[in-house]
Amino acid sequence: MYRTHTCGELRLSDVNKQVTLAGWVQRSRKMGGMTFIDLRDRYGLTQLVFNEEVDASLCEQANRLGREFVIQVKGTVNERFSKNPNLPTGEIEIIVSELNVLNAALTPPFTIEDNTDGGDDIRMKYRYLDLRRSAVRKNLELRHKMTIEVRKYLDEQGFIEVETPILVGSTPEGARDFVVPSRMNPGQFYALPQSPQTLKQLLMVSGFDRYFQIAKCFRDEDLRADRQPEFTQIDCEMSFVEQDDIINLFEGMAKYLFKTIRGVELTEPFLRMPWAEAMKYYGSDKPDLRFGMKFVELMDIMKGHGFSVFDSAAYIGGICAEGAAHYTRKQLDQLTDFVKRPQIGAKGMVYARIEADGNVKSSVDKFYTQEVLQQMKEAFGAKPGDLILILSGEDAMKTRKQLCELRLEMGNQLGLRDKNKFALLWVVDFPMFEWSDEEGRLMAMHHPFTHPKEEDIPLLDTDPAAVRADAYDMVCNGIEVGGGSIRIHDAKLQAKMFEILGFTPERAQEQFGFLMNAFKYGAPPHGGLAYGLDRWVSIFAGLDSIRDCIAFPKNNSGRDVMLDAPGTLDQKQLDELNLVIDLKQE
Amino acid sequence: MYRTHTCGELRLSDVNKQVTLAGWVQRSRKMGGMTFIDLRDRYGLTQLVFNEEVDASLCEQANRLGREFVIQVKGTVNERFSKNPNLPTGEIEIIVSELNVLNAALTPPFTIEDNTDGGDDIRMKYRYLDLRRSAVRKNLELRHKMTIEVRKYLDEQGFIEVETPILVGSTPEGARDFVVPSRMNPGQFYALPQSPQTLKQLLMVSGFDRYFQIAKCFRDEDLRADRQPEFTQIDCEMSFVEQDDIINLFEGMAKYLFKTIRGVELTEPFLRMPWAEAMKYYGSDKPDLRFGMKFVELMDIMKGHGFSVFDSAAYIGGICAEGAAHYTRKQLDQLTDFVKRPQIGAKGMVYARIEADGNVKSSVDKFYTQEVLQQMKEAFGAKPGDLILILSGEDAMKTRKQLCELRLEMGNQLGLRDKNKFALLWVVDFPMFEWSDEEGRLMAMHHPFTHPKEEDIPLLDTDPAAVRADAYDMVCNGIEVGGGSIRIHDAKLQAKMFEILGFTPERAQEQFGFLMNAFKYGAPPHGGLAYGLDRWVSIFAGLDSIRDCIAFPKNNSGRDVMLDAPGTLDQKQLDELNLVIDLKQE
Repeated sequence: MYRTHTCGELRLSDVNKQVTLAGWVQRSRKMGGMTFIDLRDRYGLTQLVFNEEVDASLCEQANRLGREFVIQVKGTVNERFSKNPNLPTGEIEIIVSELNVLNAALTPPFTIEDNTDGGDDIRMKYRYLDLRRSAVRKNLELRHKMTIEVRKYLDEQGFIEVETPILVGSTPEGARDFVVPSRMNPGQFYALPQSPQTLKQLLMVSGFDRYFQIAKCFRDEDLRADRQPEFTQIDCEMSFVEQDDIINLFEGMAKYLFKTIRGVELTEPFLRMPWAEAMKYYGSDKPDLRFGMKFVELMDIMKGHGFSVFDSAAYIGGICAEGAAHYTRKQLDQLTDFVKRPQIGAKGMVYARIEADGNVKSSVDKFYTQEVLQQMKEAFGAKPGDLILILSGEDAMKTRKQLCELRLEMGNQLGLRDKNKFALLWVVDFPMFEWSDEEGRLMAMHHPFTHPKEEDIPLLDTDPAAVRADAYDMVCNGIEVGGGSIRIHDAKLQAKMFEILGFTPERAQEQFGFLMNAFKYGAPPHGGLAYGLDRWVSIFAGLDSIRDCIAFPKNNSGRDVMLDAPGTLDQKQLDELNLVIDLKQE
Repeated sequence: MYRTHTCGELRLSDVNKQVTLAGWVQRSRKMGGMTFIDLRDRYGLTQLVFNEEVDASLCEQANRLGREFVIQVKGTVNERFSKNPNLPTGEIEIIVSELNVLNAALTPPFTIEDNTDGGDDIRMKYRYLDLRRSAVRKNLELRHKMTIEVRKYLDEQGFIEVETPILVGSTPEGARDFVVPSRMNPGQFYALPQSPQTLKQLLMVSGFDRYFQIAKCFRDEDLRADRQPEFTQIDCEMSFVEQDDIINLFEGMAKYLFKTIRGVELTEPFLRMPWAEAMKYYGSDKPDLRFGMKFVELMDIMKGHGFSVFDSAAYIGGICAEGAAHYTRKQLDQLTDFVKRPQIGAKGMVYARIEADGNVKSSVDKFYTQEVLQQMKEAFGAKPGDLILILSGEDAMKTRKQLCELRLEMGNQLGLRDKNKFALLWVVDFPMFEWSDEEGRLMAMHHPFTHPKEEDIPLLDTDPAAVRADAYDMVCNGIEVGGGSIRIHDAKLQAKMFEILGFTPERAQEQFGFLMNAFKYGAPPHGGLAYGLDRWVSIFAGLDSIRDCIAFPKNNSGRDVMLDAPGTLDQKQLDELNLVIDLKQE
């Protein structure tokens, strides 16, 4: 060992001990004949003291140390004259008697401080230096702690962690697969799993009863902000259960984690909101319930009064921002610009202030009598000082999604989205299918193995688009942290599902034959759920992005700029794989 | 929930309870008017009883159930008349009042019993059925338990588990990489990691101090028996440590696991055997120390007596098999055939029995006087009734490896390799390099980041082949379960190492630049170790093969025969990846 103690552990009770420490030079200060160095390791900072009068050459040596040099020192623990109450080791310092430079260091390209001067690109390139910053390292410590607690909870609930393979077969439904050419099987490819979905279902057929895995998953998608080509799921599956059993067990896990990791007691059962209600009242299948501003529909009240925009609308709805009547014309114009941005796509916004006397002053006063406006006010339950914001459109669902964006923006502007407040709920009763304009067919909203709600099964033949699924998402603060479903365990129902999804029996057999065949040998009723670990850690860590809870993330082009990967292959490697690169297809 | 209890939990104290169970039909017997069914789940077996006289139609229903049907039953717990002491639930049975078939099952292609009638191929194809057998499932339960305990131990020792990426850059040293074409970076490829080696070293540069990961690793090798293209490592790295610190900590982990998982107390410190000694006395860098038969060299005694085979040999050595003098001529001929097999490659074998009167009777009596043979006997410390087996050859190292095979075979034949006995040791002081005839250069025996022994550093310039490394393997029962080394943390020493390994500075920079650059910013002294989890589980489970402690293993052609992977890609997928398959190169 190069040390007797870490840089985070010495206290007043250690005074006069002879110790050896090792770590990185965080900073150094020269004051008169004294040199002070903060020595850093993962565990903390300890102040080192060199006195020119006591040992001039040692002090001279210390003065030559640069930032981030790796050193080992021997010395005596001493009580500090001016204590630092912000530091656990702030009551002591080390009077150094011996100094060994273990490794010199170039000056880092950015400062290794919580508030660094490094931009995103340079920090990604030198990720190994960025990870020295305690602000980043703490996220990974939290991630470690969370996985320890997740495993503890699930182990105690009788779950077995089973590793499923990374080199699997390609599955066409869902996102694009990453593929791996097989040298031993020329012309053939493995795929990397988008999730262990089918394998965990096979484990249920095997009678594993309760499975989990903290599993790497891979999707070759065009990366939107805050997506990673590889990500981690807490993947779970249970047999002989119904939806309630799964929801209860994993609600228990969420509460356990909030308590052990964040010290937050969530005592109430989580709200369970049907998908249709979430869309109707929040325009989102992952509503942020840290604040209100529930949508109010205004078709009955506002339609047919000569305001052509509303008169032709398929949907008119709004939100009431409490106490925001002070918004200036400029602020309201900015909100209008916000909803008109192409990413949101509204045509305009109507607003109305509730004045001190209860009168409503709106941007469409010339079309509406105060009586109608008062009816509107009642619909919102609005009070003097409140601000009502209204959107309309020809497509109800699209307009609701626009209104959702406006609601979230207002939540941000009014400071209602506190990172230390947690609003969890389950969204349930998802539609089984959604129409894809691109594919010209119904697609599985979750995946093709999702069980329809028992009472909706007859609709599969008559009105498949109306079928609801035994599917559920856990939502925290407007973010989907996990989701799952009861699976189909009946081979006939599964075959019908593939038929609705436009698979020929041959193609279904080719792609999912192994699963459908397995089901013929005695599949139990089963269901499960998967949490996005990266996302969940980021919520616990109070981060906006998942990137900083991943040790070595990739950028938006899927590159690891530190490793400079991906890269080119030798011709020999390509030959062994029977591959030719043909960039002309670009 | 489809059940109130599992099939493993009901006892005499539950008699008269109304219960609901669910599971698979293990077997059914009809005796007179009674039908008995063993219902199975992961937790055990419970006997169900149907009585024709009580409910004929229910009994008739039960009689129609086939093996592996999935059923749910309701009924009353009853004390059994004839109890089964071998079954935890053997004192009770369920008098069934209601039976629901949850899923029918085709007759499985092999019996779901501990001793199945299924061959390897069919069991791999129907792996989901094979996993129903408790003999297989128990291995995966053990694996789960081991990873839980490993994480517990390392967490308590201050290690942080950090996930490193699966999509990384290609590293040329070592085995062949699996590669992944990048659609977003046309013509470029990711590689799957052969191990997180360089990334964990970067984490040490980052100051993570103690890292571990239970990590998937990938090697595209021609698969020898009992190798898998993807396998799992317990991967660890520590900073500010010397070899002893690492050895002590992981010896502690091994002892902890043997105690918690197997109930075996290993109280003595593990032997530390230099590599040169392991080769000299056991012909192997992973000696099986469950038994003796240490090699004895006989060059001084046996050379120069006119037996031309020995007279021309560069090595003569043998083992003494205690009490094996009863071996017949036929058995000895079989041993000779064994060592002459092409995989072993010896030219022949000399044997000598120690007779009851102490005389030595050998197969080369005509060349040696009894006096010389007695000297030989002394060298072995052989007693009457012992059998001495001798090999010779022109290449000492090759002959030692042949003698190693003979020793292990004798260990097997004499029953000295008990699976419930555990002999652990560290092999240390490995050579830094080994000569590769294929490459015509020195290769790193462990990997290019291994630190040479301090006192051997001067030899790097004069006699690199003689340099020993700060490298160590943990060996259990003749199997390497883990290994590691102190790493080079000095950029100059690392550059010299690459030079000796035949890298131009440009190529070293291209391949390992990110690591060498990182080291310039303050790398701490560090080292680590990795255990092969699959192998370790197989030892704890008493298995000969790693395959049955992997849920979904691949066969020797790297195929998953259950998933039928790898497979072909659509033309569209190939186009998107800018790839053309060219099988003519075969």
